[in-house]
Amino acid sequence: MKPNILFIMADQLRWDYLGCNGHPHIKTPVIDALAKRGVNFTRTFIQAPVCGGSRMSFYTGRYAESHGAGYNGYPLRIDEKTMGDYLRPLGMRVALVGKTHMTVDNEGMARLGIDPNSDVGVQVAQCGFEPYERDDGLHPDQSVDPNLAYNKWLRQLGYRSDNPWHDFANSVEGDNGEVLSGWAMRNVGRPARVKEEHSETAYMTDRAISFIDEADGPWCLHVSYIKPHWPYVAPAPYHDMYSARDVIPANRSDAEKASPHPVVAAFMAHDESVNFSRDEVRELVIPAYMGLISQFDHHVGRLVAHLEKRGIADNTIIVVTSDHGDYLGDHWLGEKDLFHEEIVRIPMIVVDPRPSANATRGSKVDALVEAIDLAPTFLDWAGGEAEPHRLEGRSVAPLARGETPPWRDAAFCDSDFAPRHARRTLGLQPDQARAYMVRTERWKYVFYEEYPPQLFDLVTDPQELTDLVPGGKHESVLIEMEQRLFAWFRSLRSRVGISDAEIERRTGSAKKRGYLFGVW
Amino acid sequence: MKPNILFIMADQLRWDYLGCNGHPHIKTPVIDALAKRGVNFTRTFIQAPVCGGSRMSFYTGRYAESHGAGYNGYPLRIDEKTMGDYLRPLGMRVALVGKTHMTVDNEGMARLGIDPNSDVGVQVAQCGFEPYERDDGLHPDQSVDPNLAYNKWLRQLGYRSDNPWHDFANSVEGDNGEVLSGWAMRNVGRPARVKEEHSETAYMTDRAISFIDEADGPWCLHVSYIKPHWPYVAPAPYHDMYSARDVIPANRSDAEKASPHPVVAAFMAHDESVNFSRDEVRELVIPAYMGLISQFDHHVGRLVAHLEKRGIADNTIIVVTSDHGDYLGDHWLGEKDLFHEEIVRIPMIVVDPRPSANATRGSKVDALVEAIDLAPTFLDWAGGEAEPHRLEGRSVAPLARGETPPWRDAAFCDSDFAPRHARRTLGLQPDQARAYMVRTERWKYVFYEEYPPQLFDLVTDPQELTDLVPGGKHESVLIEMEQRLFAWFRSLRSRVGISDAEIERRTGSAKKRGYLFGVW
Repeated sequence: MKPNILFIMADQLRWDYLGCNGHPHIKTPVIDALAKRGVNFTRTFIQAPVCGGSRMSFYTGRYAESHGAGYNGYPLRIDEKTMGDYLRPLGMRVALVGKTHMTVDNEGMARLGIDPNSDVGVQVAQCGFEPYERDDGLHPDQSVDPNLAYNKWLRQLGYRSDNPWHDFANSVEGDNGEVLSGWAMRNVGRPARVKEEHSETAYMTDRAISFIDEADGPWCLHVSYIKPHWPYVAPAPYHDMYSARDVIPANRSDAEKASPHPVVAAFMAHDESVNFSRDEVRELVIPAYMGLISQFDHHVGRLVAHLEKRGIADNTIIVVTSDHGDYLGDHWLGEKDLFHEEIVRIPMIVVDPRPSANATRGSKVDALVEAIDLAPTFLDWAGGEAEPHRLEGRSVAPLARGETPPWRDAAFCDSDFAPRHARRTLGLQPDQARAYMVRTERWKYVFYEEYPPQLFDLVTDPQELTDLVPGGKHESVLIEMEQRLFAWFRSLRSRVGISDAEIERRTGSAKKRGYLFGVW
Repeated sequence: MKPNILFIMADQLRWDYLGCNGHPHIKTPVIDALAKRGVNFTRTFIQAPVCGGSRMSFYTGRYAESHGAGYNGYPLRIDEKTMGDYLRPLGMRVALVGKTHMTVDNEGMARLGIDPNSDVGVQVAQCGFEPYERDDGLHPDQSVDPNLAYNKWLRQLGYRSDNPWHDFANSVEGDNGEVLSGWAMRNVGRPARVKEEHSETAYMTDRAISFIDEADGPWCLHVSYIKPHWPYVAPAPYHDMYSARDVIPANRSDAEKASPHPVVAAFMAHDESVNFSRDEVRELVIPAYMGLISQFDHHVGRLVAHLEKRGIADNTIIVVTSDHGDYLGDHWLGEKDLFHEEIVRIPMIVVDPRPSANATRGSKVDALVEAIDLAPTFLDWAGGEAEPHRLEGRSVAPLARGETPPWRDAAFCDSDFAPRHARRTLGLQPDQARAYMVRTERWKYVFYEEYPPQLFDLVTDPQELTDLVPGGKHESVLIEMEQRLFAWFRSLRSRVGISDAEIERRTGSAKKRGYLFGVW
């Protein structure tokens, strides 16, 4: 019997903000318990340091350099296969509750005559997921959809506003009852203007539970929460579960600030970096961020309990992960876009309830896992045939069973920061705003178009505070890393239309098929 | 007024087998005259050394590494934009007479619900061309389409056979009237069993003339001849227009044969290489090949004359080119797949009849032009907006007008030889059978997966007889060439869904759109 797959994603959740991953103060009892029941992949890396690009890699199983949608708002090609395309033909219902950050290629859809309202049109626009509830979670007044389901629901509950997402779920009240927007970080220490059970995290959980109740299975349900992504507004009681005392020290050094790499310097000048570099900001915002994580943890618990209640826990694999981290002031930076571990390393906890996984319960696996591994893993779990000519990741199912297959010795991530203001500061054209990470067991190498690379020794400097390139002593490592990056480019799969097996079958067969070239 | 574009392609026509390009014996008066009326781009290079891959680069304006259909039979992605997609919205009728070697991605078409019989389905299956007459030109008995138009026509003319393409157009008669197949090269000195005016080259010309007669314009017509591609059977009088005396010496050396590069050695062992290395074969086949070229030249003349007759010559730009060359025994090789000039360098003659091109008539341009430049050139001629985020070539229209815009200083080509027997000889997996060429003014560098590179000095060794890598004296050049290849990989356009201009417009605009991240 095919298992169900409950594919849970948080947004902007750092690897190190879970109890099971070593945070000294945060409370994530549910996820910690899942880690004890499953496998904690402790070195999992994203493929693009921004929501949209990272998610397209999760959903396609391909590097951003391959799928081409490396930044938010870049359309995904119409014919990129996604999780739904892989799993649906195997008899699974593949659905979404929450965020994908998918931008559809409307031009391609029109050129190919695909009706956006047809089944295919909808799937193509939703990364192959059935949009049981699509909600990308950010709804500024300027662009809020008048039909946003969450807003309709809030209005039904009595929250009166054109945009209760902003005015209630992501706003707070001041000392005199005035409404203060959660967009301004100074306001996030106060509770959201919605009850906890009316917050986005609660609502998406309710919707996921509805899906589980109505679906027959086998299914793959992507429950994709917007939080702890900004606006960092948490409902009571999570808004003050933590205080400045619970904030771990910023991972940064004066030397980093004094002589930054030019690209990093341009990002340090962004508002979010300047603000997150201030202790006042960190001490207010990080507790709220932590509260949102504990709330997320609580609702993951509701999902787990519901699987039990429905009697399908024994046949539902649970994956808990995130699309990227959040600098929160580390390295004098805010937000994401670059490659420090705070951004590229994500939680990845896999709980396979089936007896075949009993041997590995509670174990940690430190193999270099990539976000692109999930699509081939799901395909593997669903009993499908591997498609290595297209899927650039590989199934972690053997690792999760305790096997030790040959495995990669480097993880890769690439950043297209063309739409960021930093590009203008640097005077780069859109094509030049590219950077690539190679991360081995020991080294982290960052290649920048137009600028020198960076190199960090993760053994002697796990905090990545000292870029070794200016010191000039690691020439052979730099050459090796550059060669790895060059080999990676060559290994990308653009020949997606034909399988290796089919090529093997055809090799040297032209003459058998009647094409008698070169015959005397 | 938009010009028409008559885009003429020969198949397997070497650069140096035209009078205007210096062949001492071949008669190509029509093309030579076109060169005098237009611009002869004397250093034009293909992007994949095989029909299908090369043509997909012509039609998409993208390197094979980008479009992913690098070998014959590899399907082109459904959403790769092709010439027709660029030109049709500008009001041009874009049609095909002859060969494209397009393989459609049936799986992708089914997944996207595109009906193969719909207008879109047909265009997608035909590289965006309206298939006025699609004929890929190779029709062995095992796979001949019972509805092949050329065969129906031959049967109407009285050529009685299930497959007159083979039994008449590509067969000859022996001394005793027996039918001998043109697949066997020993037979190609004799005339085809069809009259010249019933040969494939004549038929395709007739069909092109029919199109020109019925089309209103502006149009882009791709007249894509199968010949001088094998089977090397020419009709009378072209079958004996040339003899062994007209065959130029083979470009090869004993040293090449004695210590070949491992990949080249594997190709030297193929039948076509072994046979073409024999003088007996060259002296019989090359005259037939030359006859087919003179026949092609004659029919290009019919097309040119027909433009005059219809009164549209003044507004029809003519392009004459080829998809790749033919080793014909040079370097002890037959066929193609590798990167010697005999294969990668193609004719490219552009005749723009409009007064704006008067200054350059009869000139030669030695800038490094690539096959991928035609799609953007056509877009330019048609008055469309450049799409550099997708099109990897660049318009040669300025060069053709005598301007000297900044231009590339290296041409690139990549070979996927996975389906060739040589891969098995070498013991490579399908993914490992890859090679890449970097060709600058002075150097030709070939990078092979799994093997050392090759390097030729085109100034001191224009015949490419001496690979400098074993000598070990050009380390700095090798490093520079590898860096160029690495930079080329990074420059490929996978972010095809959004233009640079649109990114420029969005840069730093998130806050204006209401996404107030990082604000205190």
